[in-house]
Amino acid sequence: MHRRYVVLAPDAFETRRAKTAHGVIAYSKDQTLAVIDPRHAGKRVCEVVPYLKSDAPIFSDMREALALKPTSLLVGIAPPGGVLPPEWRALILTAIEAKLEIVSGLHDELSTDPEFAAAAARYGTRIWDVRTPPPVPVFSGAAWEVQPRVVLTVGSDACVGKMTAALELTRAAHDRGERARFIATGQTGIMIAGSGIAIDRVVSDFAPGAAEHLVVENAPGTSLLFVEGQGGINHPAFAPVTLALLYGSAPDALVLVHVATRTTIDGYGTPILSYPRLIGMYEALCATVKPAKVVGIALNTSGLDEQAALHAIERAKDETGLPADDAVRFGPHALYDAIAHGIAAKTAPIRLPQA
Amino acid sequence: MHRRYVVLAPDAFETRRAKTAHGVIAYSKDQTLAVIDPRHAGKRVCEVVPYLKSDAPIFSDMREALALKPTSLLVGIAPPGGVLPPEWRALILTAIEAKLEIVSGLHDELSTDPEFAAAAARYGTRIWDVRTPPPVPVFSGAAWEVQPRVVLTVGSDACVGKMTAALELTRAAHDRGERARFIATGQTGIMIAGSGIAIDRVVSDFAPGAAEHLVVENAPGTSLLFVEGQGGINHPAFAPVTLALLYGSAPDALVLVHVATRTTIDGYGTPILSYPRLIGMYEALCATVKPAKVVGIALNTSGLDEQAALHAIERAKDETGLPADDAVRFGPHALYDAIAHGIAAKTAPIRLPQA
Repeated sequence: MHRRYVVLAPDAFETRRAKTAHGVIAYSKDQTLAVIDPRHAGKRVCEVVPYLKSDAPIFSDMREALALKPTSLLVGIAPPGGVLPPEWRALILTAIEAKLEIVSGLHDELSTDPEFAAAAARYGTRIWDVRTPPPVPVFSGAAWEVQPRVVLTVGSDACVGKMTAALELTRAAHDRGERARFIATGQTGIMIAGSGIAIDRVVSDFAPGAAEHLVVENAPGTSLLFVEGQGGINHPAFAPVTLALLYGSAPDALVLVHVATRTTIDGYGTPILSYPRLIGMYEALCATVKPAKVVGIALNTSGLDEQAALHAIERAKDETGLPADDAVRFGPHALYDAIAHGIAAKTAPIRLPQA
Repeated sequence: MHRRYVVLAPDAFETRRAKTAHGVIAYSKDQTLAVIDPRHAGKRVCEVVPYLKSDAPIFSDMREALALKPTSLLVGIAPPGGVLPPEWRALILTAIEAKLEIVSGLHDELSTDPEFAAAAARYGTRIWDVRTPPPVPVFSGAAWEVQPRVVLTVGSDACVGKMTAALELTRAAHDRGERARFIATGQTGIMIAGSGIAIDRVVSDFAPGAAEHLVVENAPGTSLLFVEGQGGINHPAFAPVTLALLYGSAPDALVLVHVATRTTIDGYGTPILSYPRLIGMYEALCATVKPAKVVGIALNTSGLDEQAALHAIERAKDETGLPADDAVRFGPHALYDAIAHGIAAKTAPIRLPQA
């Protein structure tokens, strides 16, 4: 299905809370026809978020957007406090009545909301809660046996660009002849890829099993999997999701993603670690189960001018001795070529004879 | 409510799969009247699992057990493959018909099973799925501000005795005049304590928030909280639950728990780390958010004779420079007194000025 989206992002389209909307507009093959955000009504997407390079219009409500004949409504931001405000509810119901598919990345399922479910049944449309995970078993070790090499993006914090780095490197690997695939592990990635599992939504005991399931399921016919990382290993709230991917996806190599200008974990004020300390921590954890080295650094320099960006990239290289680049700003091919040797081989789990 | 239990453990009562049953028999104030396990019918609990010191009879089915006038049926083991076998289903329905409360630690909820729910409604009894978590918010940092000191038991593997160590140390702390409380984070602990949250059953994004909720909720009126740990930081499947507790419960100190005879992660064959490496890993993770040191080692020497046990304890002391003891075999008071200085102070989170 080729979707034509209206993107719902009231009072948030230019903020980091709308990162799902931004990710879909930037990377999905699906088309975004319009955005709903009353504060920016009358402008175009590229005027509010320039890097998106889309001239889709921004409207204050659904009526104008429906005239563009969309197929789907994307609920791309979480409501403040997690509870759906009444005006969002009205917008979503209007979309259902217009027979639009509803695509939602919220933790709370819209498909089991009685009012939405009844309306969707009445108007014959579908609600896709992309975050709702399928049932998965506990991690078994099957991911240790797959043929393709597995590269996981890991971060210094949440919201640094781990999905974007994985998408860009997948594109470069394709261009270099690899049978490469992007493995989505969060709601935006799933909307872009059309499949995946939101690991943060999986019951804790099964989170590594969910990551393993994705790797095993995507192994046939591929030579290289880029797994979208989540959170950060010293993130007070989201590190367990990070660790579920670190063990569960059984990576052969890691790519570290960092925002050059960030020094504290967003919203908590705890420190972002130095490159050597952060790399040491990820590698030390992997070394206890299945070794994987950090082979390069995908630096997000979006807050810097070009000279400062180049300086930050040089500093990352100096401090780590690893390849580093901004795969969005300067394209992913140079970074991919620099790490190609580092991701050429598979690693084996450490298994001792049972006592 | 003071429960009088029949414990359901068919074909597993002497195995590690029945650890919930063993834990409740050993530590709960509730009484176990009988165990159901056809393979051991006619024996007494202490003949099959000597350390439990209970002379409750073991029966092959419910009929004999019901004659003892139980109040509750405890489903204390997970069925093989996670699916309830038909003979278990019949036993549970017999218990519901006899108006017994059903207390279950299974991942799958019995209370939402249509057949059980209908039967419970008809006979006016309750099904308590102890693993079903309440809704909890994302970790906020509130656990960083509580008054009581928080001690978390951390392990070298799953099923090493983290709950038992926390229970024993809580008892010793009580005897030394602390307003100490055991904080249950798994199904057995919850059955023993009467409250708690099974962290392994919480959606990954909210698991540290669930641990924080327990600490904040139990802070008033207490001076010392012993939080039951889960899994192990290099356990391929359960480490995310470990990390959720390590950050979410915001401990001031850690007690490391290890089975003296174990060398590999049970069921996976990956290595159990040396004491220094394991301690280094736990402390390095805490040091990035809120520092906490390992202050002692609770060694499970249950597979060893007394001389070998004493030797293993000495070796743990030598390799770490820390107090070590088996708090079950030799009682918890010596270990508690040895770590009392190490758990005397609170630590603060590392917070940097926001950039």
